[in-house]
Amino acid sequence: MSDLTLILGSKAYSSWSLRPWLALKQTGLPFAELVIPLRQPDTRARILEHSPAGKVPVLRHGDLTVWDSLAICEYVAELAPEAALWPADPAARAIARAVSAEMHAGFQALRSSMPMDLKRRAPGEGMTDATATDIARITALWADCRARFGEGGPFLFGRFSIADAMYAPVVTRFDTYAVALDSTARAYADAVLALPAMRDWTDAGRAEPWTIDFGGPKP
Amino acid sequence: MSDLTLILGSKAYSSWSLRPWLALKQTGLPFAELVIPLRQPDTRARILEHSPAGKVPVLRHGDLTVWDSLAICEYVAELAPEAALWPADPAARAIARAVSAEMHAGFQALRSSMPMDLKRRAPGEGMTDATATDIARITALWADCRARFGEGGPFLFGRFSIADAMYAPVVTRFDTYAVALDSTARAYADAVLALPAMRDWTDAGRAEPWTIDFGGPKP
Repeated sequence: MSDLTLILGSKAYSSWSLRPWLALKQTGLPFAELVIPLRQPDTRARILEHSPAGKVPVLRHGDLTVWDSLAICEYVAELAPEAALWPADPAARAIARAVSAEMHAGFQALRSSMPMDLKRRAPGEGMTDATATDIARITALWADCRARFGEGGPFLFGRFSIADAMYAPVVTRFDTYAVALDSTARAYADAVLALPAMRDWTDAGRAEPWTIDFGGPKP
Repeated sequence: MSDLTLILGSKAYSSWSLRPWLALKQTGLPFAELVIPLRQPDTRARILEHSPAGKVPVLRHGDLTVWDSLAICEYVAELAPEAALWPADPAARAIARAVSAEMHAGFQALRSSMPMDLKRRAPGEGMTDATATDIARITALWADCRARFGEGGPFLFGRFSIADAMYAPVVTRFDTYAVALDSTARAYADAVLALPAMRDWTDAGRAEPWTIDFGGPKP
């Protein structure tokens, strides 16, 4: 269990890296980290040394290399069953996987117009009709999960699950771009931001020497 | 187990619907199908009756509604453990999930320039540099899976798995647009096309009365 290495992009910007990092952190398993700064001249070459798909994050476990944020989360859930990274109830687990998969493949407008950027605060930037539609869908699904499955804790399915890891970068975006949230969404976002691991990640991202300019306000 | 209903888009065009349909078909579990024709005036309203995300496919199992192709496949794998829709070996399973997740969130160029269309044959259409890059990555990962895990059968991980379901629409695209394949990729594609369920789906798609014009050759 101890020869786990997670290869990440810059913590200030790599939303896909945050997801499996947070899930792995919540298991308590020890792991090494290797951060590859994004958008540097040697970024692509450095990533390809580790990643068959040419992307971060990648998890190395001994000889095995697992890529893709969601697949890494599934692997970590199997490695640490006692952490219960998926809900135990089959119906809750199915919905947790559905909202995780919806994030994994969707919300392109939000992802492009409000990139994760832990170094800035840019209230109002990036809001388009398509992004507003994404935000409405996200907060609706958060409310639905909280109402149906949230009894045992402050997270989407009560206790922390992979679904929370998948939406953690969205929570930081809502902060960066000061997106107005209803009370249910606000309480959920605050619960995610209060995780000690989230504070560690955010502090580390802000302290990184590499800064990316996303080009100011998006259309 | 018998009150399963899979809600699908037009079989000729809905690549996302084919994936969980094929996985579910391989389990042998009985299920009902409801096909909603895509790109009709009432398509969106009809989908929203069934799908909280406003997209097909959706699986109904009694009171439970599970959406997203990959999440439905995971749910079906849990419903029918004897079908072994994921490889039994943990490392093989991790890679199977990685290639499935890579398909789930990626290959945008291929998906937009070579849409699944079982009613046409359009050799050479849709080939762009970005699509060629996607095709090279896909055939490389097929070759890697076949070499490392393919011993027990003709599929990516030997026996049929969810990874094959995820790439089945790509196999039909390579046929429709007559993409040149090396012998490993050709043999794999042929194994997928020879599945009785794939023939059934293809026949049904070609017989559908609804036809979509994707607008001819793509840029």
